Amino acid sequence: MSIIKTAAGLQDWLNASDRRNKTLGFVPTMGSLHEGHLSLVRQAREENDLVIVSVFVNPMQFAKGDDFKSYPRDIERDHQLAGAAGADVVFYPSAEEIYVPGCSTTVEVDGEISMKLCGESRPGHFRGVTTVVSILFNITGPDAAYFGQKDAQQALIIKKMVKDLHMPLKIKVCETVREKDGLAMSSRNVYLDPDERRAAAVLNSALEKAQDDLRSGRANCCDTECLRQLIEDEISKEPLADIDYVHVLDAETLEDMSAVMPERPAVAAVAVRIGKTRLIDNRILALK
Amino acid sequence: MSIIKTAAGLQDWLNASDRRNKTLGFVPTMGSLHEGHLSLVRQAREENDLVIVSVFVNPMQFAKGDDFKSYPRDIERDHQLAGAAGADVVFYPSAEEIYVPGCSTTVEVDGEISMKLCGESRPGHFRGVTTVVSILFNITGPDAAYFGQKDAQQALIIKKMVKDLHMPLKIKVCETVREKDGLAMSSRNVYLDPDERRAAAVLNSALEKAQDDLRSGRANCCDTECLRQLIEDEISKEPLADIDYVHVLDAETLEDMSAVMPERPAVAAVAVRIGKTRLIDNRILALK
Repeated sequence: MSIIKTAAGLQDWLNASDRRNKTLGFVPTMGSLHEGHLSLVRQAREENDLVIVSVFVNPMQFAKGDDFKSYPRDIERDHQLAGAAGADVVFYPSAEEIYVPGCSTTVEVDGEISMKLCGESRPGHFRGVTTVVSILFNITGPDAAYFGQKDAQQALIIKKMVKDLHMPLKIKVCETVREKDGLAMSSRNVYLDPDERRAAAVLNSALEKAQDDLRSGRANCCDTECLRQLIEDEISKEPLADIDYVHVLDAETLEDMSAVMPERPAVAAVAVRIGKTRLIDNRILALK
Repeated sequence: MSIIKTAAGLQDWLNASDRRNKTLGFVPTMGSLHEGHLSLVRQAREENDLVIVSVFVNPMQFAKGDDFKSYPRDIERDHQLAGAAGADVVFYPSAEEIYVPGCSTTVEVDGEISMKLCGESRPGHFRGVTTVVSILFNITGPDAAYFGQKDAQQALIIKKMVKDLHMPLKIKVCETVREKDGLAMSSRNVYLDPDERRAAAVLNSALEKAQDDLRSGRANCCDTECLRQLIEDEISKEPLADIDYVHVLDAETLEDMSAVMPERPAVAAVAVRIGKTRLIDNRILALK
């Protein structure tokens, strides 16, 4: 299993692999692979003849002051893990390979779906995501691409981009993989010291409590503001947690909604700083 | 030769035509086909196994007050002409087929290349062009797409978009086709009454004069401002002509430049209203 660093090299590999007569699955990542990523690779392996994993820490989706420079990188480890999970090749381009000199073209999904949650906290972030994902789709040309539900908003925006622009591939969104205490797997978890790591479990426990309350039918449990407040209260009990946002919104469009309804699930999404580390998590809140 | 109105229908046709083992040329148009378009279709026919011509008057690239409603339409005539020129199929989608309900994704090329000339005169126009062309490329999936040099800025922007986003196709830009008196072929020429039609020849004659002056090596002839002024003066002699812009810019980037140089050609581009009709034309000004 090889590492390929150029678009031309990848094209050669695709031609040599008889791609035209095969199905191709693609897992775009920023590397620092964990079980969440690997579950995507395994699903891509099950569903396709060929599997490409890309490792690219995309400068365009980080703002000044974000953790672009410190973002964990270990291509040798990623190479090994991706291969063991079933990848045929790791695409590991430089920034210059992805962004040609003088490039100035962007792909952007406008509207509420991009303005709320991380769109509000991280201006320009999703434009960076949709642009690089478009470029990676164009270079790899997959039949299906795999994303984690952990980045719920990202997955919704990419699905919308693909639909709006008629991109010829399927987007598969796979369940969040969690640590034993429920913490969603994230490359950023390595930033946490032991106390912070313990505290970080509050994101999941708060979201789970909201889900339990909804399912058990407690008073006002369908009211999204009530659910939101419950999650905020739960997280606030943790002294190391500093809330960036807690929202309960339409699970497909991220529009505001007043109550969870049988045919209209919500997504409860949170972003919380634990020490200096910003973590996100979410749960679908459905009545059925 | 058939007309196909849906993306799904086109996909069926591509599958039935064994597209995977063939080369595909694509000519996107707004219909009202003239010899300029047909020269693109013939070149696509020569260079590919399969040829698709699309006819779609794209609402997104017209501003309020533009001629979207009055833009000439005649699908039966277009169908016949495209077929005679070698098209295998005409793709003729509705606006709802191209723009799915609630769509909000755009593709945009930023920078000087988009801000000058028609970018300045028609804000939002090129975002409409790059978005619809992206959608049409995704639906048709061609190996090569054909555009006319007459829309010089459009061709440059689309080439940049394809390069920046690594889109997997080639852009071919074909020479402007002209009437006997030099007027560039355009679907909008039908708007001109006989007096206006005679006056419209001034766009080409002014551009030709600049090209002749440059070639003949007259004093200051490399100076772009001098060339620009010469063109403006020529057009101003025509009483029916109302200048929107005259620019002489770098032929690749549309950046300002002070003089035409041996390795750096300029493009002289003009937009002129003749009566109510806005016409554009351009010439490459090169020393060799």
